[in-house]
Formats: sequence, C-alpha cells, structure tokens
Amino acid sequence: MPDQYRDVRTRTITLCKSLETEDYVVQSMPDASPAKWHLAHTTWFFERFILQQYVSGYRAFDDSYDYLFNSYYYTAGQMHPRPQRGLLARPLLREILNYRNHVDEHIQRLLEFPSDEVIQRAVLGLNHEQQHQELLLTDIKHLFSRNPALPAVDPELPAPPSARPPELSFDAVEGGICEIGHGGDGFCFDNETPRHPELLADHEIGSRLVTNGEYLEFIADGGYRESELWLSDGWACVQREGWDRPLYWSRDRDAEFTLGGSRPLDRHAPVTHLSYYEADAFARWRGCRLPTEAEWELAAGQQSVQGNLAETGWWHPAAARAGDRQYFGDVWEWTSSPYAPYPGFKPLEGSLGEYNGKFMCNQMTVRGGSCVTARDHLRPSYRSFFYPDARWQFLGFRLARDGSGAA
Amino acid sequence: MPDQYRDVRTRTITLCKSLETEDYVVQSMPDASPAKWHLAHTTWFFERFILQQYVSGYRAFDDSYDYLFNSYYYTAGQMHPRPQRGLLARPLLREILNYRNHVDEHIQRLLEFPSDEVIQRAVLGLNHEQQHQELLLTDIKHLFSRNPALPAVDPELPAPPSARPPELSFDAVEGGICEIGHGGDGFCFDNETPRHPELLADHEIGSRLVTNGEYLEFIADGGYRESELWLSDGWACVQREGWDRPLYWSRDRDAEFTLGGSRPLDRHAPVTHLSYYEADAFARWRGCRLPTEAEWELAAGQQSVQGNLAETGWWHPAAARAGDRQYFGDVWEWTSSPYAPYPGFKPLEGSLGEYNGKFMCNQMTVRGGSCVTARDHLRPSYRSFFYPDARWQFLGFRLARDGSGAA
Amino acid sequence: MPDQYRDVRTRTITLCKSLETEDYVVQSMPDASPAKWHLAHTTWFFERFILQQYVSGYRAFDDSYDYLFNSYYYTAGQMHPRPQRGLLARPLLREILNYRNHVDEHIQRLLEFPSDEVIQRAVLGLNHEQQHQELLLTDIKHLFSRNPALPAVDPELPAPPSARPPELSFDAVEGGICEIGHGGDGFCFDNETPRHPELLADHEIGSRLVTNGEYLEFIADGGYRESELWLSDGWACVQREGWDRPLYWSRDRDAEFTLGGSRPLDRHAPVTHLSYYEADAFARWRGCRLPTEAEWELAAGQQSVQGNLAETGWWHPAAARAGDRQYFGDVWEWTSSPYAPYPGFKPLEGSLGEYNGKFMCNQMTVRGGSCVTARDHLRPSYRSFFYPDARWQFLGFRLARDGSGAA
Amino acid sequence: MPDQYRDVRTRTITLCKSLETEDYVVQSMPDASPAKWHLAHTTWFFERFILQQYVSGYRAFDDSYDYLFNSYYYTAGQMHPRPQRGLLARPLLREILNYRNHVDEHIQRLLEFPSDEVIQRAVLGLNHEQQHQELLLTDIKHLFSRNPALPAVDPELPAPPSARPPELSFDAVEGGICEIGHGGDGFCFDNETPRHPELLADHEIGSRLVTNGEYLEFIADGGYRESELWLSDGWACVQREGWDRPLYWSRDRDAEFTLGGSRPLDRHAPVTHLSYYEADAFARWRGCRLPTEAEWELAAGQQSVQGNLAETGWWHPAAARAGDRQYFGDVWEWTSSPYAPYPGFKPLEGSLGEYNGKFMCNQMTVRGGSCVTARDHLRPSYRSFFYPDARWQFLGFRLARDGSGAA
Ligand SMILES: [Fe+3]
Ligand SMILES: [Fe+3]
Ligand SMILES: [Fe+3]
Ligand SMILES: [Fe+3]
Repeated sequence: MPDQYRDVRTRTITLCKSLETEDYVVQSMPDASPAKWHLAHTTWFFERFILQQYVSGYRAFDDSYDYLFNSYYYTAGQMHPRPQRGLLARPLLREILNYRNHVDEHIQRLLEFPSDEVIQRAVLGLNHEQQHQELLLTDIKHLFSRNPALPAVDPELPAPPSARPPELSFDAVEGGICEIGHGGDGFCFDNETPRHPELLADHEIGSRLVTNGEYLEFIADGGYRESELWLSDGWACVQREGWDRPLYWSRDRDAEFTLGGSRPLDRHAPVTHLSYYEADAFARWRGCRLPTEAEWELAAGQQSVQGNLAETGWWHPAAARAGDRQYFGDVWEWTSSPYAPYPGFKPLEGSLGEYNGKFMCNQMTVRGGSCVTARDHLRPSYRSFFYPDARWQFLGFRLARDGSGAA
Repeated sequence: MPDQYRDVRTRTITLCKSLETEDYVVQSMPDASPAKWHLAHTTWFFERFILQQYVSGYRAFDDSYDYLFNSYYYTAGQMHPRPQRGLLARPLLREILNYRNHVDEHIQRLLEFPSDEVIQRAVLGLNHEQQHQELLLTDIKHLFSRNPALPAVDPELPAPPSARPPELSFDAVEGGICEIGHGGDGFCFDNETPRHPELLADHEIGSRLVTNGEYLEFIADGGYRESELWLSDGWACVQREGWDRPLYWSRDRDAEFTLGGSRPLDRHAPVTHLSYYEADAFARWRGCRLPTEAEWELAAGQQSVQGNLAETGWWHPAAARAGDRQYFGDVWEWTSSPYAPYPGFKPLEGSLGEYNGKFMCNQMTVRGGSCVTARDHLRPSYRSFFYPDARWQFLGFRLARDGSGAA
Repeated sequence: MPDQYRDVRTRTITLCKSLETEDYVVQSMPDASPAKWHLAHTTWFFERFILQQYVSGYRAFDDSYDYLFNSYYYTAGQMHPRPQRGLLARPLLREILNYRNHVDEHIQRLLEFPSDEVIQRAVLGLNHEQQHQELLLTDIKHLFSRNPALPAVDPELPAPPSARPPELSFDAVEGGICEIGHGGDGFCFDNETPRHPELLADHEIGSRLVTNGEYLEFIADGGYRESELWLSDGWACVQREGWDRPLYWSRDRDAEFTLGGSRPLDRHAPVTHLSYYEADAFARWRGCRLPTEAEWELAAGQQSVQGNLAETGWWHPAAARAGDRQYFGDVWEWTSSPYAPYPGFKPLEGSLGEYNGKFMCNQMTVRGGSCVTARDHLRPSYRSFFYPDARWQFLGFRLARDGSGAA
Repeated sequence: MPDQYRDVRTRTITLCKSLETEDYVVQSMPDASPAKWHLAHTTWFFERFILQQYVSGYRAFDDSYDYLFNSYYYTAGQMHPRPQRGLLARPLLREILNYRNHVDEHIQRLLEFPSDEVIQRAVLGLNHEQQHQELLLTDIKHLFSRNPALPAVDPELPAPPSARPPELSFDAVEGGICEIGHGGDGFCFDNETPRHPELLADHEIGSRLVTNGEYLEFIADGGYRESELWLSDGWACVQREGWDRPLYWSRDRDAEFTLGGSRPLDRHAPVTHLSYYEADAFARWRGCRLPTEAEWELAAGQQSVQGNLAETGWWHPAAARAGDRQYFGDVWEWTSSPYAPYPGFKPLEGSLGEYNGKFMCNQMTVRGGSCVTARDHLRPSYRSFFYPDARWQFLGFRLARDGSGAA
C-alpha cells in the first residue's frame, strides 16, 4: 500500500513534466480546472477525508484550503465556485507542491500501521487521484487548443502506429438475463453496485470502435445538416454551437489537435472528442444504435482489461489491429444508457456519498476508459458519465443494433 | 369517427369559453405557447398531415401557416421560432377560428369515406389535439400566474371536495419479469411500443400521491436548504432560481394559484407544480425513492382508468378518498426513469417520426395523466416526459422503496 | 383648455383606429410597450399627478393600476417591470378604455374651474400624451415588423409624394456666442431650460436630411465593413448584431417596412431607423460630422415649425422639395451632443423631476421631431434623447462640418 | 531620449518586482488584462509602429505576436479577442521578457540617430507604456481582490500618512470665456487638441477631494437605497450589481483592499474605486454637482503638477494636508463631461488615429491622474475616460456647484 500510494502520487507529478509554471494556472472553461487546482484538490481529498478524520491533533496545512480545494462536497463545507478556479494566481505552484509533500509525509506515516478504514479511504483517494490525472491531461489539452499557436502539451509525445483496421463486423449476442455491476473483492466505486441481473434482448455489438475515416463519410453525406438524424436537443446544440466536426479537428478536416500538437488526421484511428449527440446521430445514419451499458459490460467482461491505455505513452487513440476489440482504452465509449442508480444502489455514508450518486441525472454513461486512463484503474464494471454535449474528454463510441433473434 | 372528430375539436373551443381575445395572444415563457397558437397548430396538424397528403388538389387555407404553425417537424419544412410565438398579434383570433372551420369542413368530408390511413392519421391528430388541450390550459394558467392580480382563468370553476386522505401505506410487489408497453388493439403513441419484458426487483409502491400537507413538513424540516437531499443539478437549480416552494404556492404557503384563481392551500390534496428535482429530494428525505416507470405501469395496469380527470370539471388535484389509488388523473407522476426508447423501438415513418422519438434524451418519464387530461386519452402504458426542472404542468409524485424480499 | 384636453386624448384613440384587439397586447422588445399599456399609462399620469393630488376624496379607478401603469417614477411607488408589460393580458382593452373615460370625466370636470397648478399639470399631461402617441406608433410598427407577413399597421396609409430633392449644400454659420434653450412663455419641458449662452465655432450645416440614395452609396462603398469609419462601441454593435442596413430595409435593400406595410425604397426620401453609430459613421465617411445640438438649434430657430409632421397623414419621411430645410418633422435628427443638463438646470420638484433629468447619461440628443410628431408638440428648443444603438424610432440625420473661418 | 526610453521601459519591469510567474497569467475580467499581456502589448506597440515602419528589413520577433498583442488597432490587422487574453498560458513570461529585450535593443539602436518621426513615435510609445503601467497595477489589484485570501500585491508597500484634512470649502470662479486643451510645445495626446475657448458660467469648485469619511455619511444616510439620488442607468446598475459601497471596501466598511493588502479604512483619505454613478449620486445628495472638465482644467491649470503620484511610492490615495488642492494624483476625478471631441478635433493619421478618437462615445472624462500615475506623464490638459460604471481604476471625485453670480 505505501508503494502504491507513492507510485500514484508520483505519477501525477510525472504527467506534468512538460508543463511550465504559466500552464498550471489557467482555466479554459467552467468544466475544466487549472492543473494547479488538480494537484491541490487531490491532496485535499487525502487531508480532508483521512488526515483530518483519522489523525488526532492533525493541523491543516493551510486553513483556507478547505474552502479553495473542495470541489463539490457540500456536507464538508462551503467551496470556491468552480468557474472561478482560474482566478487563483495564488497559492503558487511551489506552495501547492509543498502542500503535496506535507500531506504525503503524513499519509505515508499513517500507512505504516493503517486501520482498515484508513486503507479503504486511501484506496479511494488513489482512485480519485487517477481520475484527476486523466482530467488534468484533458483539461490542459483543452487549454492549449484555445491558443492560436496550438502548442503541444508534450512536444516529445510519440505518435501511435497506424494501419488499416479490420472491417467493422457485429458480434451477435443472445438475449436473456445477465448480471452486471461489481461483484468481486477489489475496489470499486459505489455506483458500480450492487451487482444485479439485467434482462437483455437479442442484439449485436460492433467489433471495434468507429474510426475517423467512417466519421468523415458521415460528414461528407451531410450528417451535420440533416435534422432528422439528430435528437432534438442535439440538433439545437449543433445549430447553437455551429458544430460541423469533432472538437479538435481542423477546419479542413485534415488535422487533429493532440497532446503532441497538431497532427495529420489518421483515418484508421478511432474518432474522438465528440458528444453523445454526434455519436447517436452517426449511429442513426448507419441504421444502428449505441449499445446500452449492460450490453457493453456483458461483452467487455469477456475481454481482458488491456488496450491503448495511459501506459502505452501514446495518449491518443490508435487504430485497431487484427483481433483488437478495443473495449478498454483509446476512448470512453458513449452508451445509450442515462447514468442512473442500479436497483438497490446505496451511496457511501457521509460526505463521500456525494462522490457519485448526486450526479445521476441528465448525464449519459460512458464505459471502457481511454488512452489516458491508468491500466490498474479500470474494470469492466467501471462507470463514468458526462453530459451529452461534453466533448473535451477522450470520448468516442462503438455501434450496436437489435438482434435478428437467431444468435 | 366523424362524431369523435367533432367532439374533440369542439371541446378545444369549449375549454376556451372563459377566455377573452387578449388572453389568446400572449406567450409567458419560451416553453409555453399562446392559446391562439394552440388553436392554429392543432388545425395545421390535420391540414399538413392529412389534407395536404390525402386530398388531391387541396389548397392550403393560407400558405404562410405552414411556417407559422409547424411546431418542430423539421422534415415538414422550416418553422417560426418557438420563443417568438407570442410576437404574432396576427393572424387574428377570428382568422384562426375561420381556419379551424375550413379544415374541419374538409376533414369531415374526408371522414365520410375514409381510407385506413386517413383514419389512423385522424386518430393521431385527435390525440395530438387532446395533448394540446392540456397544454392550452397549463400555458394559460402560467400566463395568468404572471399577472400581479392573479386573475382566475375560469372564475366559475368549482373547487374539488376535500377531506383527510387515507394514511399513506406501501403496496408490496414481488420482483420478476413483467411486461410493459402497449400491447392491445387501440391507439397508442409509438413511444409506448413495443410491449416488452422488464425485470423488476422486489419493491413497494405508495398507496396514493404525496400531499401538500406532507410536502409542508418537508419544507418545515429545511428540505430546500439541505444540499445532501438533492441531485447536483437540482441543487444548482434551487440556488439559481431561489426555489423554496412549489411553483404556484403563495410566499406564505397558505394559498395556491389554480385555474379558478388563488385558493387556500388544501393540505389533503396532492402536491403539484413541482419539478423532478423536488420530488426526488422529498423522496430521499423520506428514505424512499420514486418508482420506475415499469413499477408504475405494473401497478397502474391493475387499476381501472378513472380518477380526477378533466371530466370532473375541477381542473385541480383532489384529496384521495378511501380506496383511491390515484394512478390516473390529479397529477402526472414523476418516475425515476429517464425517457428512453423501449428495446426495439421504431419511430413512425416520415415526419411523424419526429413526434416522440427525438425527445428521448435529458427528460424524465411521467405517468398517469392529470386533472386536465381527457379520460379517453389515457392508458396505463401512456408515457409523457418533461425536463427535470419543468414545473408548469400538473406534475406531482408518489413514493416507492426497495422491497424487503418478502412480498 | 378643456377642448385641447379632449382633442389630444381623442387623437390617441384615433391613432389606433386600424388596430385589432390582439394588436394592443404584445410587447415586441423591452424598449417597446404594448398599445394597451400606452393607453393606460398616459391615463394614469393624469390620475396620479392631478386627480390624486388635486381632487379631495378622489378614489382610484383601480388600486392595482398605480403599480401596473407607473413607468419609472420611483418616488411615486413601485412599478411593474418594464420588460414584463407584454405579460399583462389583463386588464382587458375595454377595461382600459373605461379607465380612460373615467379619468377623462374627472379631469374635464376639474378643468371647468381649474387652478393654475392644475392647468400646468394638465398641459404637462397632454404633452406627455403626445410623446406616447408617437411611441405607440413606433412600438406597433416594430411589433408588426417582427411578423413574417409584414402586415400594414394602416393598410390605407397614403404614400408621401416623391421627387429628386435639391442637391445637398452647406449653410455657413459664423461662430460666436448664441443663446439656446427655451426662453418664451409657452410650455416646455424642464430639460430645455435654462436658456443660456453657448459658444460656437465657425461651422457649416447641411441644407437637408441625408437620403436613402446617399445612404445606399455608403453601403455600396463598404461602409458597414470598414472598422475605421466607426466608433469603437458602434463597431462592436455592428459585429454583434450583424447590421448591414437600416432597421426596416429589406435584405436586398429594395423595400422598406412602413406603417403602411412594405413599400419600394424611395431613394429621394430621408434615410431613417438607424442608430447614432450609423449616422456618425456615414458622416465620417463623407468627411463631415454631425451637428451639435446648439448648432442645430441656432439654425432651426430661424425656420418656422412646419414640415412633414403627423398632420400630413403620411407617417413616413418624405423627399425634400425645393426650399425645404427639413428641420422639423420627417425624422428626429441625431446630434453629436450627449444628452446632458444645461448649465444651471433644475429638474421639476417631486416625482415629476424624474421625467427627464435622470436620463442625462449615456444617451444622445435628437432634435426636430418626426413624421409622427404632432405639430403643436414641437419647438426649436425641444430635446429628445435615445441610446446610441436605438433604431426603432424615426431617427435620421443631417451633416455638418467645421467652418472655413470665413462665413 | 535613449535614457528616457530605458527609464520608462525599466520602470515597467520594476513595478512587477513583487509578482510571481503565476500572477502574470490570469485575466480577472474582460476589462482587465494579464500582466504578461501588458508587458508584451507595450512592446508590440514599439515593434509595430516604429520598427516595422522605420527599420528596413526588420523581422518580427515572432509573427504570431501581431495577432496576439494588438489591442484594438483594426487597421493594423486582426487581433486576439480581449476577453480571451487570459487563455494564453503561452507565450511564457520568459519569452515575453526576451521579446522586450529584443525590441529594446532595436529601438535603442534606432534612437542613436533618430528621425523626427521616430522620436515622435517613441515619445508616444513611452506615454503609452506609462498608461499601461497604471493599468498593470490596477488590473493586478483587481485580480488579487478576487482571491479569498486578499493577498497583497506588494507586502512591503508603505501606508500613506494620515491626518484630518482641511474642511471642504469651495473656490468661487467667475464665468466667462477660458481656453482649455493643450497649447504648448511638449507631448500631448490628440484628444487634448485643439486648444479652444470654452464659455463657463459662474461656479464654485471643491477645495479638495471627497473623503472616505464623507462617503460613509452618504451611506449611513441611505444613499444606496434612495432612487431619487441616482441617474436612471446608475440606479439600474446599483440594483443589478447589488452595490452598497465602493468596490474594495470590506462588507463592514472597516477595511479597504489596497495594493499592500487589506488595511483599515482611513476616513481622512479620498474615497476611491467608485463609479461615475456613485460620484454623481453623492454630489446630488450634497446639493452639489460634479465639475465639468473645463471647470476642472481651468482650476487645475493654476496649480503645479504635483501631489500623491506614483513617485511617492504609496500607491494609494492619501489624506489632504493643509493647502493641498489634490488636483493631481491620488485619484482620477470624475467630471460631468461626456468624453467627446473638442471642436475641430482631428485624430492622428493612420492606425494611431484609433488611439483615442473612436472611444468618444458613452464614456465620461476623468482628470488629474492618480496615485499610480507617473509624474512626468501628466498635464492639466490630460484627458482620460471610462464608462460610467467602471470602478477598478483609482477613481474618485471632487464637488462643484453653480455660482451665486458674485464671485
Ligand atoms: Fe475530485
Ligand atoms: Fe403539437
Ligand atoms: Fe410616460
Ligand atoms: Fe495599449
């Protein structure tokens, strides 16, 4: 456990190795946070939910941090408004790094002879940190994308290999009752529980992710101009925002902004940085639909948790090679399932009950992790969620369709 | 069929009997439409989807109406923006009434020897008209509520009787596979199909609607001030809008605005004009939850379709009497189910496919009709839907909770 | 005086002769008011500032009207928010007409043996009513312009005659001290006082108004695309609003919406319905500037108060004939003078001090009345004022330029 | 001249001595700019308007800077939108400092044997730089004020001495024709020309600035709650923004945020950081008015240009000592004069004509410089200007009133 703590915490800093002090400060939109804030907030999580509760006499590193670095835990006190995180030139980066060191020392001391509760909380804290590692990268990517010079977050970032992926086919699945949700011993978030039966109809699920090349066909066929392909809210969004391509594509659709800067668009790689509305419209255009999260989990559960995850070091989706099902890594996959509690769901007790449960409205479930998700952070039952108009995460999709009845 | 046509169309006019010319014109918010617009739009529906398609040589009453009175059927052409419906002082009310007469004459002639398709479309048109009858009343109620004088829409409206309702109890239901959705012969909307199996867990469902008196307890207990009772989006809404009571309650919570004007708040009557967020927060406060739409339909299907519907003439929710389950009428009941397609759902062909399917995102399913819904418009499988922050419809709720396992 | 009262009040009703009940209700933008509101507010002015103060025991026609029909007299009590005037379906038009009759009877009785104060107030009330007569027409014109059918406010309205106007020349004026402001016996608004000296430089002032034809040249020369012609706030406005022509011109610049409906654009007539920013940009493009209000008043004072005013019945600007200086009528002329108090200005005592003085910031002075201003309402010293982005009034301009020194 | 160039440029960097890298990046509101942007933009001014025009073969330091660091010179090309200046994490601070060095070297070389034009432009550039020095401080002050910790921009900043100021009296001035505007040989901005006669009435002008103590009386007397004291737009602003005290006062009115952090409110010091609306309302409450800019310039012209300017090192307004007239330094003084061109005003030729002239609408003239204005930057004829709701500059005021006629 102490090793694991050190590894995860160190990795957060390693991710930032190519950032300059200026890069840590700016908030590019209300949904995103400055890198500095991520560094502090993840630390606050350990301080607030472990040190302040399990270390008698612990004195906060700085009393103002409870206000500044609480994200949304109302029961833990008031918080600095999210859209104003970018106004905080102070505390300085070096003060935040001191804060990290201070808390790390205390946690590591505590982890020498930890109670079960402390271990549980620490594991939660590390999983929380891993989530913010991903957000840190996608937020800084968004920030750099708003700079007319399109600077690379990491100019040394290697490009993933590319080759024509296998033809898209569909895997037929017979309907019936299946079990989804987390059932084993390891860590999971509360929103993955309880494991419970789901009734599925016969269906087919796509053999790989939808590619840039396929998405270009949708655009060429007028996909962004045909209202009948779109959900009503999606069409309103397209009109209002003037969307005509994924978030980070160049105007001429030849290039894509990546964490390594602007690169030629790889037609073989999975399309990414698009909204639920766009995924849904594409599926309708192809006479398909998106999979439900139960359909997805049933299929993904038969795969091993490996793929183009953060460990490849590419930090960008890559073309499927023969045999790749791409359930894990590359892009978070939009499902057709609104993010909702499983039957019998109980959130964690206390403030940590605010972690997941209160967001179970107006968002769509996404599955499978992305090219910036850590390998040991994922499970088939893992649920993340975004508003249907979100595009700044590594979001993509696979197709599904109703089954013929004969599997 | 011709009788039915005449009855439904006439009833729309009858509903307006207490309105003055001025009342027909104003749009009180983007979600609502002027009464005049409802009268014209429902007529346009018959003209556009029946007369223009099934009567050769039919000439439109006015060529501009296709633009002015199309609501959201993009595939049928461009339309006047919804938030600007209230700018249309012209066409005049008497012109709209002429339009109604003109279309009625043509439809009635067609219904003398109608094809199956025409009958199908006419039935759809009448159900569409019944939906707008309800909207017409709730929209005009909203408009009158914005007038400082709080005028009565109908000063003669009788108040419903009131008496202490039976204690709230819970009906236990054993889990298993049930069937929901429309399965019979009669008319239904496409969103009620296909009938399909759903897997339900053991659960309990409230024996009646939640009352004003019960909701007052929630408020008295600080319900609107306790963030942990609320969904995150709901809490943001409460803060932003300054909500501290249902939409039409007076500031001191003694009175309620009704279609008959301001009246003393009846503690025994079902609470109404509140959002999904408020229903959900109340349920959490009571240690309960809202029913899913499948749970609701299973229970409602065992009741006959009767209750305080438009025909009572009260046009306001009424206290439950002994034995009343209140599944139909009084208020549309918020369920915990996001409005989504049933497995295998296929929208209608053509423009009418835009009727329901494209709204299957970001909204919550409501069930059971209200005190201004026509009796012959309802079915247990009937699904309506609203955004979770909507309050201007007759919206209320009943509680549910997870079952003990022993039904 | 009683005759004058009856004449002015009757004329308000006469102006509305072509309106239908529906037309009286709608508010097309926050700056405009429904016709019904104008009818009531002008009546309230007499009731509130005369009957309630000078008739002992007078009982208000309706107690709620003090709130509903107060425009901006904070010291007279709270008021219904201006942007919500269009929500008031009630009181009905016929109730407002009854209100007018009721107040008219009381005022007329009072005017049989009036005190000096009552006469003063009544004269102010009639001038106020005349201002609202003009607003009533421009507001209803704006409303009708938002209707896709572009209905005529008065389908019988005669078009003004047209012929090539005299060439634009400049009248040279020698600098020195002149007097401006109201100095005589008759009625004037407080903002026209005190009469005071102004120091003018040598200058030249245009012999007539700028025409549609001249403005078309400005457009053809790229006027709306050249940032250097514009004030900074004006350029921001052009970009934000997408302005590329005066408010009521058709997209192809061939037609203009008038109170008589859409008509071919008359190149000889004065350009109208444009903002200060547009007038200022045009002047800069021509190497000129707008006149100051003192320059304007000095010149206008040498003319008789006649021109294309409301009495012509054209209700639209008309081409200048030989000799027409067009100082009065046709269009209100933008001057380069910010609306500010004259040296030594004292507003009226009490609530009526709110009439003019509190608006002396952020607005520009306009002069000379328009084609919908009553002849007996004007004077050379008359000052009106609008925000520089306003366009819905009959606003136009004449050019001026610095003098050569030799007059 | 080379010395002067070096001094002014160096002083900009010296002003920043207490800033950390993080502080240079953030934009706290659309009106303010990041410190980094000020450093770059002032440099760009020299590069764009001198090096690119007068050094043949000069190559831009970075081609993208023309877009990034142009403020509002449309005729010099397109520019990065002002509200997005805070999104530019890159270029880095050290790159901007390199840019400054690069340009400084080229300019200094050019200044060894400069043409008259180059000298003129360089003087303009230095005056421009001095304006931005002031903005840099007021912008960073605003940024730090948005931080809940209220950090000091310079923790070492000495507090100005304080003592009861002389009683406020009024200096009587006889009316007549006076001359204002710049007439001498030295540098001035185009908006100070031409020197021209103005006609003034008898009036009296306050002997010193209005103090915090006097402003507290206005508040205690309900000044922020009495609509009749306010201009209409000002009252709307007070309601909308919830203003009840100057911008940087603490809620309890005991403390004030300064560049040295939060300090006890000094009742003897001039009130500052308030809008034109507040100054105007205070004046009305006292039965006075604000001086016109001509009245101000006439009086100030009789004083020497000295006072609490940037050189005192206090960077905050200070109590008047016996004899202090406070015309220069402490705070920019709101006048009652809308910012407008002087009669016969001609802007500079070319892009530099955009410097001042295009802002002559919707703003009010302020006079006299502030506690962060450089001594050698000021003149009696100096005109600055702000929108009437601006508060983030060191803005204050003195009173004036109409004369009794006997001076
Ligand atoms: Fe977090
Ligand atoms: Fe409809
Ligand atoms: Fe008025
Ligand atoms: Fe500048």
